[in-house]
Amino acid sequence: MAKINENFLKLKAGYLFPEIGRRISAYQAKNPDAKLISLGIGDVTQPLAPAITEAMNKAIVDMASSATFHGYGPEQGYDFLIDAIIENDFNPRGVELDRSEIFISDGTKCDIGNIQEIFGIDNTVAISDPVYPVYVDSNVMAGRTGQADQNGQYDKIVYMPCTAENNFLPDLPKNSVDIIYLCFPNNPTGAVAPKQVLSKWVDFAHKNNAVILFDAAYEAFITEPDIPHSIYEIDGAKDVAIEFRSFSKTAGFTGIRCAFTIVPKQLKACTKDGRAVELNPLWNRRHCTKFNGASYISQAGSAAIYTPEGKKQTRQIISIYMSNAALIRTSLTKLGYQIYGGINAPYIWMKTPDGMSSWDFFDKLLTKASIVGTPGAGFGPAGEGFFRLSAFANPENAKEAIKRFAGV
Amino acid sequence: MAKINENFLKLKAGYLFPEIGRRISAYQAKNPDAKLISLGIGDVTQPLAPAITEAMNKAIVDMASSATFHGYGPEQGYDFLIDAIIENDFNPRGVELDRSEIFISDGTKCDIGNIQEIFGIDNTVAISDPVYPVYVDSNVMAGRTGQADQNGQYDKIVYMPCTAENNFLPDLPKNSVDIIYLCFPNNPTGAVAPKQVLSKWVDFAHKNNAVILFDAAYEAFITEPDIPHSIYEIDGAKDVAIEFRSFSKTAGFTGIRCAFTIVPKQLKACTKDGRAVELNPLWNRRHCTKFNGASYISQAGSAAIYTPEGKKQTRQIISIYMSNAALIRTSLTKLGYQIYGGINAPYIWMKTPDGMSSWDFFDKLLTKASIVGTPGAGFGPAGEGFFRLSAFANPENAKEAIKRFAGV
Repeated sequence: MAKINENFLKLKAGYLFPEIGRRISAYQAKNPDAKLISLGIGDVTQPLAPAITEAMNKAIVDMASSATFHGYGPEQGYDFLIDAIIENDFNPRGVELDRSEIFISDGTKCDIGNIQEIFGIDNTVAISDPVYPVYVDSNVMAGRTGQADQNGQYDKIVYMPCTAENNFLPDLPKNSVDIIYLCFPNNPTGAVAPKQVLSKWVDFAHKNNAVILFDAAYEAFITEPDIPHSIYEIDGAKDVAIEFRSFSKTAGFTGIRCAFTIVPKQLKACTKDGRAVELNPLWNRRHCTKFNGASYISQAGSAAIYTPEGKKQTRQIISIYMSNAALIRTSLTKLGYQIYGGINAPYIWMKTPDGMSSWDFFDKLLTKASIVGTPGAGFGPAGEGFFRLSAFANPENAKEAIKRFAGV
Repeated sequence: MAKINENFLKLKAGYLFPEIGRRISAYQAKNPDAKLISLGIGDVTQPLAPAITEAMNKAIVDMASSATFHGYGPEQGYDFLIDAIIENDFNPRGVELDRSEIFISDGTKCDIGNIQEIFGIDNTVAISDPVYPVYVDSNVMAGRTGQADQNGQYDKIVYMPCTAENNFLPDLPKNSVDIIYLCFPNNPTGAVAPKQVLSKWVDFAHKNNAVILFDAAYEAFITEPDIPHSIYEIDGAKDVAIEFRSFSKTAGFTGIRCAFTIVPKQLKACTKDGRAVELNPLWNRRHCTKFNGASYISQAGSAAIYTPEGKKQTRQIISIYMSNAALIRTSLTKLGYQIYGGINAPYIWMKTPDGMSSWDFFDKLLTKASIVGTPGAGFGPAGEGFFRLSAFANPENAKEAIKRFAGV
């Protein structure tokens, strides 16, 4: 008799974005003429940069001829992309990496969902609250948690509240933990971690023989000069951290699918009897067994991000989004809202007015202004009373949204 | 202290293709002028069909303009592709499917590696011998097996030998099993399962409440009219089977990455206390949590396979490969070799001459004829004494290989 993985039954049914979708549909059914503006889901709106589409067109030409056809590529990705990443994203920041430490994939969501497979079930996982739900759900599915409580928080996970009081930078856990998920620039709060904050985490991981899973999907949105883009800018981080990077937001690749994960060769975890084992070969084995390489066309497009034209064009697109962020931030501040984020991240994290709940504010904004945002409570209990606005809108929509906000 | 998943340590180090690579490198270092012909790894060689590259070019045009830009798509894939699949691959064969039963992905290797996650650890898995290694390795990593023996076979897995005596069609397991991997047309043996054989498996699954994981990645290579292309052509199969399909070989997509998996809504497995649970929502949850949709460009290219031009062009490419298969099959038969497969599959499964071991024959073919094939023993102990030749070569290489075979 085939038996299911009963851990799946622990998952809370109402994933955030489907619930948002349901409320939007209900509103639209009643108000068919309403012109909705979405500052909700963190999806990009600007078209791909010309340097990228040109490179992808060339890749298709390659695929149309026997002599230049590309079948299976290396599961870990093509060297032309790996080299461009190392030379442009890491070497200028003082970080040396070997090709074998980089694994190209079809998305950070996949990698950060799958990475937990190389760790045993008996690890204690520490996760920020609020948080990107994939970190939690992938551990629930694997059986690293108990049941959820009435707040939707799972037994055995160590939650680290991120509040206005701690500047949305989680405090170190009081007890030892084994695996720590960190995301900076943060989704959903827009917070960033200065060097001394990341150093504190690297020290903690060293002391506890813990591994940090560092989600840097939004690093391209950092505007302040002293904020680290990579955790490997911190001394000793290669001993304790895996880093996740994505082209989804950096270059509008949400529909193209390309990302990469860095597993340093010196990074180790232990067997139950205390023998240290390198994690790079374990991830390599997972990657080669259950993945067959990212699309050649996606990789060719990704490499074009690193050309002089590609860099210029993708920076311009990021500027559009960060102008939206600045507009939303300053305008809502003037309207008396308490605003966080939006300086080094494409997300604005706002306090709901008058102590409203996140979902009540969602409904109010939807019905009074036809604006869709994301209720903070959907990212965890500490997100209650907050609301996420995404800066990935078209500029005209961002401007129109601000006008409407004045009437809410 | 972070602990590794110790199941990874059970995996046998020497994956087949890396070992082949090592032997080739050593030979090439000694024989720099040798012109190698690869009939080894099952990768396509013909360029993409014009209808496909045209559709992908159009998709890139879409991505270059705000009005037609595609960001995140549905994790399950676009309806334009799902509908084309149902209407062309299934309805004409009498199989009705709902859109929600199809999950587009970036590859069958990923799906068939990941599918086991929705099943509990305490399932008994039945796997053919010889076999595509991903079925085994993904279950080892998950902890569904014990250690490997000296043959590389893992404790707790039920192996089903496929030999010349049973026409490479595995016998039903003597005892109850819970999850059964079947692959037809088969990699590596090239065997196909007629309707009555598949019916036998569907019956067995019904009687044992087992689930069949049916890998149909090579269905496009079936040339004989009565062979089922889908397990759902068998009555009752929707109650017991998940099917995996790929565009990798059908349309040369090994470097493009697009495939799909069918999880019928009526398919169920049980909790430990015997409650039946639908598998479709479980896979949907896994898919949405750890995957973010296949590339829009790959999906647009895949949909073009189903246009009149696309069908014609991909059929032509498949004919090239199947002509290779026919040539290899008939020529080697004339040379006195015992040959299987190659009629409804792009793989020829040959008996090694004079009782040679698979690897000895690999070395002989490499050193005497500069031909690379795949040792059958690499797919499992029952593959010992056999050798796989792939028909995915360029036709001139296939012809040249046949000439060289005469001199071995």
